[in-house]
Amino acid sequence: MTASDLDGFGLAHLPLAVGPDGVVTRLGSQVISLARLAERARLPVAPELVRADTLNPLLAEGHESMAALRARLQEVLADSGPSLAHAARPLDEVPLRLPIAITNYVDFYASKTHATNLGRILRPGGEPLTPNWCWLPIGYHGRVSTIVASPTPIRRPSGIRLVEGTPEFGPSLRLDIEAEVGFVLGRRSELGTSVQASQFFEHVAGVVLVNDWSARDLQAFEGQPLGPFLGKSFATSISPWLTPLEALTAARVPPVPQDPAPLAHLVDEDPWNLALELELELNGQVISRPPFATTYWTPGQQLAHQTSNGADVRVGDLYASGTVSGPAPDQFGSLIELTDNGARPLALQDGTTRSFLADGDVVVIRASAPSEDGGRITLGEVRGRILPALPQRHLPR
Amino acid sequence: MTASDLDGFGLAHLPLAVGPDGVVTRLGSQVISLARLAERARLPVAPELVRADTLNPLLAEGHESMAALRARLQEVLADSGPSLAHAARPLDEVPLRLPIAITNYVDFYASKTHATNLGRILRPGGEPLTPNWCWLPIGYHGRVSTIVASPTPIRRPSGIRLVEGTPEFGPSLRLDIEAEVGFVLGRRSELGTSVQASQFFEHVAGVVLVNDWSARDLQAFEGQPLGPFLGKSFATSISPWLTPLEALTAARVPPVPQDPAPLAHLVDEDPWNLALELELELNGQVISRPPFATTYWTPGQQLAHQTSNGADVRVGDLYASGTVSGPAPDQFGSLIELTDNGARPLALQDGTTRSFLADGDVVVIRASAPSEDGGRITLGEVRGRILPALPQRHLPR
Repeated sequence: MTASDLDGFGLAHLPLAVGPDGVVTRLGSQVISLARLAERARLPVAPELVRADTLNPLLAEGHESMAALRARLQEVLADSGPSLAHAARPLDEVPLRLPIAITNYVDFYASKTHATNLGRILRPGGEPLTPNWCWLPIGYHGRVSTIVASPTPIRRPSGIRLVEGTPEFGPSLRLDIEAEVGFVLGRRSELGTSVQASQFFEHVAGVVLVNDWSARDLQAFEGQPLGPFLGKSFATSISPWLTPLEALTAARVPPVPQDPAPLAHLVDEDPWNLALELELELNGQVISRPPFATTYWTPGQQLAHQTSNGADVRVGDLYASGTVSGPAPDQFGSLIELTDNGARPLALQDGTTRSFLADGDVVVIRASAPSEDGGRITLGEVRGRILPALPQRHLPR
Repeated sequence: MTASDLDGFGLAHLPLAVGPDGVVTRLGSQVISLARLAERARLPVAPELVRADTLNPLLAEGHESMAALRARLQEVLADSGPSLAHAARPLDEVPLRLPIAITNYVDFYASKTHATNLGRILRPGGEPLTPNWCWLPIGYHGRVSTIVASPTPIRRPSGIRLVEGTPEFGPSLRLDIEAEVGFVLGRRSELGTSVQASQFFEHVAGVVLVNDWSARDLQAFEGQPLGPFLGKSFATSISPWLTPLEALTAARVPPVPQDPAPLAHLVDEDPWNLALELELELNGQVISRPPFATTYWTPGQQLAHQTSNGADVRVGDLYASGTVSGPAPDQFGSLIELTDNGARPLALQDGTTRSFLADGDVVVIRASAPSEDGGRITLGEVRGRILPALPQRHLPR
């Protein structure tokens, strides 16, 4: 193994996270403290930026600074000298925090396969896609306080769902996964202005993986007419590692064709998507491999859309793609799709089956992408274990 | 006029806002700086709390501290001595900021009259209320970065709406008002736990007025299946003044009866609502007087519902009631209801008519409530003037 692969965490990657003493990066299974590194090696950013308890101040410096920091880290870390040993600790000994302070969290619905699958399941007999779907990237705002960093365990939520046609309050019986890709803003915009799709690279700092946990039964009962609320708001997991866009230059691919042609404000003159290959694992078994490049609305269009009414974005804002589902049945990014709404449970290697998540289940979302050195990088995983719902007497206390 | 009325801003009120040098209160048309007051009069809170640039640290102290501060302010301000003159400035000379740092913003749909009116207009021929409406307070998350303090002017948003059946991008042609009441959290809860309706007073610090500006045409096109997004996210105005719950003890009234009986987690053993009388003014003319006490789901139930899945609340969080519409046609809280979706335009005193808002229109939402001294207090107004949409060539830039 060379310094450039290291299981996808070599010098071509250098993701960022936040540990107990500030910003860290990663080389293989070693976590490197930038604050400690800076004690012995000059870094081209102000010391307070790498000692901060979120990535926000560093991301706000912009891509020029990020690229300079990256180049310097590649230089310093390549020689593996004493300054590195001083700053390195094993991955499993460093607790990582939620890496960003988020003002706005938006979740899109950008995969046409996913939206079609959900439409068929939830509105059988009708057109699977609503008439607006091909005209704009549908999205909604999610809850910010319940965004947690992997591997925070996830408590099964309770809420109102229909039991034999009667609304009852109790633990969700249809707890699901949504494998998504998230984009973190590194540059704010002004309220009253719009950001173009082609300005994506100026405004977005990097990528995280997202599990948008979904209680399908709660969501089904509450969802009309104002959309998802408690069926989603109990938890959203993100990877603690942010992969800077600088590490994804080789992952750019042409987007899928769009028909009808997008309206002018959603046109990107040089459109692209990212060739991120996702992997969805349940209890150690890979159950799906969703290809992000198949999503219909590009990350640039998602950014342009959310600001097209003049809404501003802030540094640290997070927007996610919505469930990534490729066209093949083994590329779907949620259990409701993989099991056809529970009609065809998944057979697991331990002999059990799953329609939706059971208590104790462990879900991991991973992804990899081509890197500029001709190899591949591995994005930081997002992991979560399902804890049982609290006893009813505790709800409410 | 006595010190106890002062147009609803007497000693029985003492709302809180944030000015250039920190927390302020108000006596009539005088703004009193608590930081300056503290230079000559001892206040029972730490000096840094009244010098902060948001109310959050002060609200987080809890109701015991808030009540002690209020009692001391009533004492100090009653004698109108030199310490007061030192700290006072005329209202129109003090720029007020957005008073709270908000993590989560939730907007409910708690008025049965409003939901019924909207259902009749948007889904003619069907049942006006969706089957879930009487079982839970429907709500959704709104955008946090676009919450602005009155009197910030409001730029008319652009977006995709149908023009003769064809999706086109352009300025909203159906820009509307929603007169709402907002609740600001003063105490956080833990992720994974729930707050009971009866714990409202422990968790909520006070009340603001809210105008949830709504672009009906954008909302109509985008709203299925995931709810409102750009039709709402361009701006939400709140009053800069927060009325502490301590000033609203005389405003508590029994809530309207609920049928079916709420499920256990939404039951409040000692239920109540607030007798806030709203007033909606367009270009100087009162066009509606919505009575908040007619809302079906109480503020306590709205709080219990949003945490019933284990989602946490944070200090500074804002949740709003949704449009307040009383049963009489002159009590509706939005233009879409007041004009029956534009079919019966409002005649204004200047000879013009309005179906929806025109550029230059000025909207003011006011409210008053009974106070403990037998008089009434006036809540801080929320005001906004409509600016024309940016020229199309600027969208996107």
